[in-house]
Amino acid sequence: LVANRFPRIYGILNGTCNYILTQMEELDAPYAEVLAEAKRLGYAEADESLDVDGWDTAHKASVLAWLAHGVWVRPDQMIVEGIGRITPADFVNAASLGFGIKLLAVITRDFETNEIVVRVHPTLLPENNVIARVSGVFNAISVTGDVVGTTLYIGRGAGQDATASAVISDIADAAALLRRGTGAHFIGEEGPPPGGNCRMAPAQRIRGRYYVRMTVTDRPGVLARVAAVMARHRMSIASVIQTPAAQSGAASLVLTTHESDERSMQAALRSMVALESVREAPLLLRIGDFGD
Amino acid sequence: LVANRFPRIYGILNGTCNYILTQMEELDAPYAEVLAEAKRLGYAEADESLDVDGWDTAHKASVLAWLAHGVWVRPDQMIVEGIGRITPADFVNAASLGFGIKLLAVITRDFETNEIVVRVHPTLLPENNVIARVSGVFNAISVTGDVVGTTLYIGRGAGQDATASAVISDIADAAALLRRGTGAHFIGEEGPPPGGNCRMAPAQRIRGRYYVRMTVTDRPGVLARVAAVMARHRMSIASVIQTPAAQSGAASLVLTTHESDERSMQAALRSMVALESVREAPLLLRIGDFGD
Repeated sequence: LVANRFPRIYGILNGTCNYILTQMEELDAPYAEVLAEAKRLGYAEADESLDVDGWDTAHKASVLAWLAHGVWVRPDQMIVEGIGRITPADFVNAASLGFGIKLLAVITRDFETNEIVVRVHPTLLPENNVIARVSGVFNAISVTGDVVGTTLYIGRGAGQDATASAVISDIADAAALLRRGTGAHFIGEEGPPPGGNCRMAPAQRIRGRYYVRMTVTDRPGVLARVAAVMARHRMSIASVIQTPAAQSGAASLVLTTHESDERSMQAALRSMVALESVREAPLLLRIGDFGD
Repeated sequence: LVANRFPRIYGILNGTCNYILTQMEELDAPYAEVLAEAKRLGYAEADESLDVDGWDTAHKASVLAWLAHGVWVRPDQMIVEGIGRITPADFVNAASLGFGIKLLAVITRDFETNEIVVRVHPTLLPENNVIARVSGVFNAISVTGDVVGTTLYIGRGAGQDATASAVISDIADAAALLRRGTGAHFIGEEGPPPGGNCRMAPAQRIRGRYYVRMTVTDRPGVLARVAAVMARHRMSIASVIQTPAAQSGAASLVLTTHESDERSMQAALRSMVALESVREAPLLLRIGDFGD
């Protein structure tokens, strides 16, 4: 892909999270139950936070951004959100809207402004996107080059055999590099890749569509109040799903939005939390309209 | 993938053929019409035979077999069949059985007998196989390693930009090799890959399921005669589809078989051609039950 620049790279980089999300969806099972099973199978570490909170994915996104753009982006410079608050009901809601839910790393670069954005978050992907159907411990990366178009790479991302295979491959690479005497550049043997003169875009400016699920007091007028908050922040609502919630006297309210920006969405969320009828911090997921 | 041996590698290696098959399926359009459009778009060469008869795919399969197994298999040592006799009706038949049709290269190695088989032919792939859904000029390769499991690679396989990207990449590789002074091993820089002590299995022994479509005289008793031929060769029929054919007084008869071997299937085909009611050489497609 040496002839290419990369406007977009995205994918599933953590097999543990994808296993958990797939099991939750297929078995209609809660997060905690599936996580315990993943630990038993050796797919999740004893301390699962590095995986499920998105940090492992962020580390890998950092490596990918360096390979593609020649800049090191630290995880604390990215939006990083994990999968711990997703419920089986979110999969039902997403499916009714034509989406699956995947934890994605998304690396985008605008070659006009020369700005790069790296982010990690659970994403609603259209069901006809191949990556939406990559299940279990499999990882998948979609790499869009400006010349070659989109290429896709899929393989196991967790489990002792797949990990052993990758480790042996790394050792073989290291041995080959040592024998050639070209030193310790394990990533990008020939020195840093070109194109390093880009800068981070402020997260506030990221544009996209959103999925917001909140637990609200089940009484007339709540949707009107929530809709008024959205309107005040110039967020346009695309769809609404209202279902009974587990808590008594509560309802689950799911909104999807048309395209907006992160600043407006976050401001609307803060206003929503301040509403008396909103019982807990809303869950925000992002919608990935990647087209392929 | 250096830690792996490869029991199976298969995929779509020719973007032109995949474009033609996809268009035939989506537009319900005949082969000749779609081929003409592919030439107009620059996806097919003026002389299309290298693509559509499977030879380009066979050349690429030969390279893959060398990389994976360290042996050069010549195209004349492979089963190589093209796409020229497939009709839009075959896509309808295949879909009704739960399959798509793709021109595949299939490289299998049995590590107990140490035999390798390389073949190129249109294949019925189950619709839930990701490769069955790879459409247009995209290529896809499924590589099953004994340690890492199955990995999948998808990208554009025809068109001037994708080709230019690949050519520039090859030139960059060549330049890097020259600079290092390691000579002209463009494939397998370090000399031939290991594992070269395998031999070709006789094609007669390949096992699999088959799809046979024939044009027969539309009169009572024809299916009985065809079924008798199949039984004589110990071929077990899995399904039968009989539809009116374009020729007057003719019917299209489609059989699928349970697992058998190439020798029995070819012998049955020869007996079928000898039947008075069979109007032309049957079309044989293979069914790819690859599991992933």
